[in-house]
Amino acid sequence: MILHPDRLFPADPATRAIARDLYAAVAEKPIVSPHGHTDPRWWGENPAFADPAELFVIPDHYVVRMLVSQGVSYEALGIGEGAERDARAIWRTFAAHYHLFRGTPSRLWLDHALSEVFGMTERLSPANADAQFDAIAERLADPTYRPRALYERFNIEVIATTDSALDDLRWHRMARDSGWKGRVLPTYRPDSVIDPESDGFAANLDRLGEITGCDTGRWTGYLDAHRARRAFFREMGATATDHGHPTPQTADLPAAEAERLFDRIRKGTASRGDAELFRAQMLTEMARMSVEDGLVMQLHAGSFRAHSAEVLARYGRDRGFDIPVPVSFTAALKPLLDAVGLDRKLRLILFTLDETTYSRELAPLAGAYPCLRLGPPWWFHDSFEGIRRFREMTVETAGFHNTVGFNDDTRALCSIPARHDVSRRSDAAFLAGLVVTHRLDEAEAHELAPLLACDLAREGYRLERGARGARPGGIDDIGTPVPPARGRTATATQFEG
Amino acid sequence: MILHPDRLFPADPATRAIARDLYAAVAEKPIVSPHGHTDPRWWGENPAFADPAELFVIPDHYVVRMLVSQGVSYEALGIGEGAERDARAIWRTFAAHYHLFRGTPSRLWLDHALSEVFGMTERLSPANADAQFDAIAERLADPTYRPRALYERFNIEVIATTDSALDDLRWHRMARDSGWKGRVLPTYRPDSVIDPESDGFAANLDRLGEITGCDTGRWTGYLDAHRARRAFFREMGATATDHGHPTPQTADLPAAEAERLFDRIRKGTASRGDAELFRAQMLTEMARMSVEDGLVMQLHAGSFRAHSAEVLARYGRDRGFDIPVPVSFTAALKPLLDAVGLDRKLRLILFTLDETTYSRELAPLAGAYPCLRLGPPWWFHDSFEGIRRFREMTVETAGFHNTVGFNDDTRALCSIPARHDVSRRSDAAFLAGLVVTHRLDEAEAHELAPLLACDLAREGYRLERGARGARPGGIDDIGTPVPPARGRTATATQFEG
Amino acid sequence: MILHPDRLFPADPATRAIARDLYAAVAEKPIVSPHGHTDPRWWGENPAFADPAELFVIPDHYVVRMLVSQGVSYEALGIGEGAERDARAIWRTFAAHYHLFRGTPSRLWLDHALSEVFGMTERLSPANADAQFDAIAERLADPTYRPRALYERFNIEVIATTDSALDDLRWHRMARDSGWKGRVLPTYRPDSVIDPESDGFAANLDRLGEITGCDTGRWTGYLDAHRARRAFFREMGATATDHGHPTPQTADLPAAEAERLFDRIRKGTASRGDAELFRAQMLTEMARMSVEDGLVMQLHAGSFRAHSAEVLARYGRDRGFDIPVPVSFTAALKPLLDAVGLDRKLRLILFTLDETTYSRELAPLAGAYPCLRLGPPWWFHDSFEGIRRFREMTVETAGFHNTVGFNDDTRALCSIPARHDVSRRSDAAFLAGLVVTHRLDEAEAHELAPLLACDLAREGYRLERGARGARPGGIDDIGTPVPPARGRTATATQFEG
Repeated sequence: MILHPDRLFPADPATRAIARDLYAAVAEKPIVSPHGHTDPRWWGENPAFADPAELFVIPDHYVVRMLVSQGVSYEALGIGEGAERDARAIWRTFAAHYHLFRGTPSRLWLDHALSEVFGMTERLSPANADAQFDAIAERLADPTYRPRALYERFNIEVIATTDSALDDLRWHRMARDSGWKGRVLPTYRPDSVIDPESDGFAANLDRLGEITGCDTGRWTGYLDAHRARRAFFREMGATATDHGHPTPQTADLPAAEAERLFDRIRKGTASRGDAELFRAQMLTEMARMSVEDGLVMQLHAGSFRAHSAEVLARYGRDRGFDIPVPVSFTAALKPLLDAVGLDRKLRLILFTLDETTYSRELAPLAGAYPCLRLGPPWWFHDSFEGIRRFREMTVETAGFHNTVGFNDDTRALCSIPARHDVSRRSDAAFLAGLVVTHRLDEAEAHELAPLLACDLAREGYRLERGARGARPGGIDDIGTPVPPARGRTATATQFEG
Repeated sequence: MILHPDRLFPADPATRAIARDLYAAVAEKPIVSPHGHTDPRWWGENPAFADPAELFVIPDHYVVRMLVSQGVSYEALGIGEGAERDARAIWRTFAAHYHLFRGTPSRLWLDHALSEVFGMTERLSPANADAQFDAIAERLADPTYRPRALYERFNIEVIATTDSALDDLRWHRMARDSGWKGRVLPTYRPDSVIDPESDGFAANLDRLGEITGCDTGRWTGYLDAHRARRAFFREMGATATDHGHPTPQTADLPAAEAERLFDRIRKGTASRGDAELFRAQMLTEMARMSVEDGLVMQLHAGSFRAHSAEVLARYGRDRGFDIPVPVSFTAALKPLLDAVGLDRKLRLILFTLDETTYSRELAPLAGAYPCLRLGPPWWFHDSFEGIRRFREMTVETAGFHNTVGFNDDTRALCSIPARHDVSRRSDAAFLAGLVVTHRLDEAEAHELAPLLACDLAREGYRLERGARGARPGGIDDIGTPVPPARGRTATATQFEG
Repeated sequence: MILHPDRLFPADPATRAIARDLYAAVAEKPIVSPHGHTDPRWWGENPAFADPAELFVIPDHYVVRMLVSQGVSYEALGIGEGAERDARAIWRTFAAHYHLFRGTPSRLWLDHALSEVFGMTERLSPANADAQFDAIAERLADPTYRPRALYERFNIEVIATTDSALDDLRWHRMARDSGWKGRVLPTYRPDSVIDPESDGFAANLDRLGEITGCDTGRWTGYLDAHRARRAFFREMGATATDHGHPTPQTADLPAAEAERLFDRIRKGTASRGDAELFRAQMLTEMARMSVEDGLVMQLHAGSFRAHSAEVLARYGRDRGFDIPVPVSFTAALKPLLDAVGLDRKLRLILFTLDETTYSRELAPLAGAYPCLRLGPPWWFHDSFEGIRRFREMTVETAGFHNTVGFNDDTRALCSIPARHDVSRRSDAAFLAGLVVTHRLDEAEAHELAPLLACDLAREGYRLERGARGARPGGIDDIGTPVPPARGRTATATQFEG
């Protein structure tokens, strides 16, 4: 047996029994996936996957970096000039090193996908590598293993992709126009037209101007171009934006100063620090636009991208060499929060790779500002221990309702059920711990489990079934019924002004 | 049943049994409360509390910020211009959102106060909100619910308030002169006359001069004014000072340089950085005065106060928008410690909101310098998980004797027994874990439990029953009897020079 | 009974049973000690230890600092001018304060040494202090308590010392030439000739020149002198270097710039920041030399040495006043890693005192770069809770194979078995937790336990039995057999160029 039915549940028998019950109540809930990186083409064209190596190894930066860290070459994994082209050879290298994943979330995800999606009954090993390669390849040729079929089989209710601001969303349109009932939404990710240090920034801004007909040579035209693209994304179903910045720094410059900053950057006369200042200013501008159009804003900050110059030069980006750095949100977010932080129409979801910010900054911030919510544990921390630390360090200060459920955040389609399963089990384990130590009644835990499994994600990302755009209401409508208290009317009056 | 008798005890049955025994041995110990924010007027005038909203909601920044974070307005909670004035309406809003506190220490404290102090038998909910409001209001009208009666009922042995350096301590005097047997001590908190960036700083210094007759226009007169106020506070029973600084930075400038710094600040010609430098210098000056007068020094550093400009402008301070920032003590404390860190008469208790400093800096510092002690988990970390992390990250390096027991640190009078109870249970759980993993004998745990519950607080804050001032002895007199070892004599000789 | 056979095993009975089995399988494995601070003279001359105080108290900075932190003087512990000279008096002071170590790793180590090495049957206390002193003193007079006898009794397979670059390694030579079968290796620790801020730096460089015949007045001569000393250390059996730096900053200056930097430092015209830059540059130079000669490189960064000026002046270094500071590796290591980070011949083992770097930086770095490995929890973190946090925060991202087993890192000879025992028990506890939560099969845990106990140390430090120098092979030869995959050939081609 590859997967034990009690995996990730606490060792103590009484606690385990409670966790089992809590998990059972949410195990079959639909998957709500508001943030991820699946390829939109899959949903538009519904192609077959090429082979097991292409599906499980080559594009998975978690897998690739671990093998590389132990001396396997990129070339042996099918990456780079002169790389191995034989999928079976790549698969054998993977299988030969499968023991390296012991104790990692990748192992759980891979075991889950291989057993639950592909029906393997033994854990991958050098001995069974060829047989499993053949079996997986055979299934991939079958229509039931195409993306849309997997979407349905995985019981996905909605899935968001992450898309460049310059993207024409053709695959989203194709999926929508095809009559397929799957719900695939784009997410507005404008980093390439916001970060002056991104590759081809000037050309990207020119392109943004062409697409929108706005004059992106000028600050106001540039802002209008964002508005136009956001409107287009909303029209295509987007409910959120996403911002990957080196730091969470924000700024709120006087308009004339922002304009001069933009001019310097556009004319190539930017001074040291201007790039960071511009990114900072743009977070506040994006927040203002979110107040206007209702798109939920996500901020993913603190990754030092492409840390190795040589890996970047030879193998490109997203090869497992993105390394976190220390971050601090408290002072960094103040300009944005002073500008629009009390506006009830804003929702800003924060993500961190620096776990020290959970209890020190993020929980206190989200436990105060009405616009803020905490994103789930991100990237390296999307794991049993990571989820445990997240809950232990945020719930006491921010509660559960200031969080937004789970993100699978993946381009590895077959790992999606595995990741949501790990999240649901980890949360069941956490809740069971609260119950057995009498910090929560069991009935309360049963109210919270479905919130954590999918309801808070639906609500947090304004993903109500059927609606394509944002909705005005707040989180209060979920969970314990809230009477029409006078306080809530007052709230609206106060914060919406 | 709102409160389970086994709450916060470990799930494992054997560990739980040990925790139960350890807790039982300290559950009825008196409450020693050496740091907190109860209103001195309560102890002087012994007034009735106005109503349930005034007691449980409006002044509790933990409660208010959580409701605000989920969209409730300050006005609905009775705060700000045009705010709700109907206590029952505020109470209903609170009850309608009580589910938001699931998993938080506020829930434990509120449940405890409502059930143990007010006799409620159901958890607060929208359905019972009115009935509980009425029941609490009725009890509040009864003399047994006045502050002094609650002091006695809670079995408080001593409680310290926190008082401005400019305070006349009239309520302390009234309490003392009334013949009431309660022991209420002031604490010297001079932030408003030390922090050049505090509101009305110049006027505060003028006022300090008037009160003391010292020339606070000059550095030496200013220092003398502090000495005079400290003497007054000591006379009124104070055993400690408290310092709330943005950072733990200290400085030890040559006298002439300190004088020039003071002059710049006093004349309004301070340059950038002078305010921080002045606060830093004053921590060392305060430590020197503590060596002279024996007042225990507390340092609470690392909170970004009033983070939201709008909340500050509209609703004032202490409204739940104080957010921690990263801090580091190692380099910051060196000037002070080089000046007086080996002086046996100094005691400096350190508090942090940045839990990363526990194992990295605070435990190593307190495990070396004889003057240093670790304050209990502060503010957001005064919780089951917070206490667990504190013990796990400090005991191995600093042991138990370099800590000072618990602080309730609250203005919420009815939560005091709840907070000490959570602390005693959490420590019983931690000690039980050490016993069951054979890191500690059960008999040793039984020696430690009362130290953590009250003896280390009494000792650490020099609060010996009966004495009003400081006492010279050290911590060694507590716990295992210490023979008159020669080493201790040598100590005195060495460090007291 | 001082030591319980189940100490450090999880409370839950099912988990404990698994931990017991895992521990039993490695309890008797030989001790591999690749990093530590035993005195080379012990191995060369094999002298008797003087007395119990000299063995257990005076040189142990963990013990001394804890006693000092609670008011015991250095003098009472036999340290400093006019110090106590009577070993029995020092021992009594120690015994009188033994309760201070409750809950600390020192208590576990001391209990273990006193009971397992010296046969004590009661825990040390004031009551039995004299009797235990006499018993230990009697044993110390016996040849079976001399260093080499203890080496054999402790079942040490190999032990490395840490030696100045200027050391003549005479004791190592004496040990080797004596015909004794013990394997004692030096480690090249060049801090005193690399850190411009170290005491007597200029004289040290002159001495380095004399020893090697290289012109250490010039940059290239200085580098050659390092090469010569490294060759000598390798000849004497060294497989590693060790670098204790205030920060992990690295640099990779153009040769001419590095030369000018060296000249400034050598001529005493260094500007502010030059010392840090020089240390940074030298880490990269050392890494380049490791690529040449195969010495494994260790980096211990982030300790603020000799924090108290007065303690330094009166009692010297290594007296318990080294306090950690925050560090960050991500940006700091980039210059070195860009220079040689993908070179398969480099191995760089990283240590931290800032636990926040485990999950944020170190595990992601070691889980990507083939040259990097994570050293075990260091110093304050070499404890049950420290090891637990290390595993919980690194395994999910870096796995087990990017770690290098345990270091006892001690000058306290009798604590070596205790420290390895704590490590093996803590890892058994961790693995048992993975098994019982079905993150690992029990058979897999049994494969991992011996890796963590000694095989990864042997491999990580290139300490293969019999070989004195480095060997070319990688970690892959350990654990699950790896077929001669094509990927591994490609690796060699790629990274060795």
